[in-house]
Amino acid sequence: MRIVVIFLCKDSLIQRQSEKKAVTLHIIYDNNTVMNMLNFTVGPVMSADAVREIGAEQVPYFRTSEFSATMKENEQLMKEFAKADDDARVVFITGSGTASMEASVMNLLTADDKVLVVNGGSFGQRFVDLCELYAIPHTVIKMETGQQITAEMLEQYDNQGYTAFLVNVHETSTGVHYDIDLISKFCRRNNLFLLVDAISSFLADEFDMKQLGADVMITGSQKALACPPGISVIVLSPRAIERIERNDVRCMYLNLKDALRNGERGQTPYTPAVGILLQIHCRLKEIERNGGVAAEIERTRNLAMDFRQKIAHLPLEPITQSPSNAVTSLHPLNNSAFSIFEMLKDEYGIWICPNGGDMRDTVFRVGHIGALTPADNSTLVAAFDELHKIGKL
Amino acid sequence: MRIVVIFLCKDSLIQRQSEKKAVTLHIIYDNNTVMNMLNFTVGPVMSADAVREIGAEQVPYFRTSEFSATMKENEQLMKEFAKADDDARVVFITGSGTASMEASVMNLLTADDKVLVVNGGSFGQRFVDLCELYAIPHTVIKMETGQQITAEMLEQYDNQGYTAFLVNVHETSTGVHYDIDLISKFCRRNNLFLLVDAISSFLADEFDMKQLGADVMITGSQKALACPPGISVIVLSPRAIERIERNDVRCMYLNLKDALRNGERGQTPYTPAVGILLQIHCRLKEIERNGGVAAEIERTRNLAMDFRQKIAHLPLEPITQSPSNAVTSLHPLNNSAFSIFEMLKDEYGIWICPNGGDMRDTVFRVGHIGALTPADNSTLVAAFDELHKIGKL
Repeated sequence: MRIVVIFLCKDSLIQRQSEKKAVTLHIIYDNNTVMNMLNFTVGPVMSADAVREIGAEQVPYFRTSEFSATMKENEQLMKEFAKADDDARVVFITGSGTASMEASVMNLLTADDKVLVVNGGSFGQRFVDLCELYAIPHTVIKMETGQQITAEMLEQYDNQGYTAFLVNVHETSTGVHYDIDLISKFCRRNNLFLLVDAISSFLADEFDMKQLGADVMITGSQKALACPPGISVIVLSPRAIERIERNDVRCMYLNLKDALRNGERGQTPYTPAVGILLQIHCRLKEIERNGGVAAEIERTRNLAMDFRQKIAHLPLEPITQSPSNAVTSLHPLNNSAFSIFEMLKDEYGIWICPNGGDMRDTVFRVGHIGALTPADNSTLVAAFDELHKIGKL
Repeated sequence: MRIVVIFLCKDSLIQRQSEKKAVTLHIIYDNNTVMNMLNFTVGPVMSADAVREIGAEQVPYFRTSEFSATMKENEQLMKEFAKADDDARVVFITGSGTASMEASVMNLLTADDKVLVVNGGSFGQRFVDLCELYAIPHTVIKMETGQQITAEMLEQYDNQGYTAFLVNVHETSTGVHYDIDLISKFCRRNNLFLLVDAISSFLADEFDMKQLGADVMITGSQKALACPPGISVIVLSPRAIERIERNDVRCMYLNLKDALRNGERGQTPYTPAVGILLQIHCRLKEIERNGGVAAEIERTRNLAMDFRQKIAHLPLEPITQSPSNAVTSLHPLNNSAFSIFEMLKDEYGIWICPNGGDMRDTVFRVGHIGALTPADNSTLVAAFDELHKIGKL
């Protein structure tokens, strides 16, 4: 295997990092340039060696009983880790998280619904846009950046004829993790269909689909599943499956009825990203071996706590009081957030996650999902310390 | 890297094949089983070592100028190899070829069109289904299995007010390669918008988009691009871009207007299969270094000719007189096609491509795309010879 490490700066910090990571963190940009980066973005994240080894294999032909068996096991493990009903089903879509958000809105909601949508950032806005696109009657619960949802906010919608509730349990753009127990209680007492985007939260924050009465949970391969991007996953409760069967949608590729029918034999209607599905299988089995979903969430929580403690002395202000374990969103007090992202990238070989739009200069995010360790946190914090010392943080 | 080769049979043929291919052809089904397979399916196909090495790398963060530059180069090389207009554009969809077929029908055709659709197999039928789904007025030109289109068939549609023509230039399910020059002339004299699914034909058969006056060409990462499945590609003529800009579609994920706007800066609206896009880049650059699209087509044609010569003595009947270079579709005279597929898979470690539906027992296909050589053809033909000798072919 060809490994060329290019040092973008002579900084001693990078030298240390490169020595430690030389094998697992080399990244090819094109055929000639390989860069060694430490990745704290919220996707794609860093993958374990075993997952990357599968990426080096030939991709097998997939209309076989062998591949079907792997897919059935993927479905079973996803159900187990989401704590879904025994009769739940799982659909694997070759596409981004947005493909699964759209498939869910399109296949599960109709013009006869009356939907509440929590909108606290770009991904909440995406659900609002999808409701508008598909003419789903809806009311928006507009949140301030990083704001937690409260009982008072929800109470005004009690007994108002709502039929469904849409929420990004972790609004990835701001880092806020909404109080899903509160939302669950509200939905139960109003008998609402509960559709949850847990794209960046699954395996990072606790989520018990059956206990919460959630009907849909969406995630993506490049988040805490720590595989390359290309697959999104939808876990469907029996009530969700009924809705799909009743509904006729005008889309071939995102038709969930078709996906469910093919899934019965461990297949997909069209050629899926076979390689990524095998990587997901490897990762799910690894989580199972290491103690299951509880142990994985605990590992992520510890990593997040470790990072938040290590930056307590720095001029970085958390933008939410109720963060997900998946990410810490920070407002730097003394410099542009985007400049800090660029300096870390170009001078330190570290990616943090920039924000777009209005928050480009005021907020960056540090992810805690993927193959990261407390030592990686220390590397990033040491870089922050250096920037702070020279007045750039 | 962990390499375990499992011999599914003790056949001397397999021993030889395994010795030759032990490094490049090991395939992981799960964490414990690795199988060494020679892959003649029409996707996923076998990838070159350089492409697979990228699969072993960490996937980089992609909202960067570095990734944008790679994507711009992908667009440029795709245009060059498709011989598209300088003002053409290329969209990369994270999804199967069907996602791009649907995006094309949805974004480029409207209820004001009157469309001719060639239907000679499963993929022709898919275009018909899409026209029905989106209420696009259309007339079906129904073809017999493997039948070539003729001037007489087309003449009856001259001057009948048609506005667009839809064809799978290579109908992958039967192997027929339609006479695209004939279709092009018909479209030019009737001023038809020409939309071509070249999913399994691009880089295998000649295709000069500008000369043919084709407006859309679709392909997929797992065909002759010889990368893992997960990305499909749409090349759009200036006339196609105009149609997209004029049209409003009710789909977020497959919205080509949005894809074109993001593509201007080398980005995609949603997280793409970044790893596969880097692999496509590697492959396109490799083709460029090896003499460009003409040399790649020539290599594939030679491989197909070599195979067709080597099986001339066997009871295998070609089902079309005008085959694509990408695949040879064969009707075995003495045994079920599906049984032959299964024997080759389970006893010889070789995948050929089974057919579904009505053709399950009568037709199998042998692909000539991907990292295959004349020696691989000989391995397959030796297996056919053995089966023939024992009365199973």
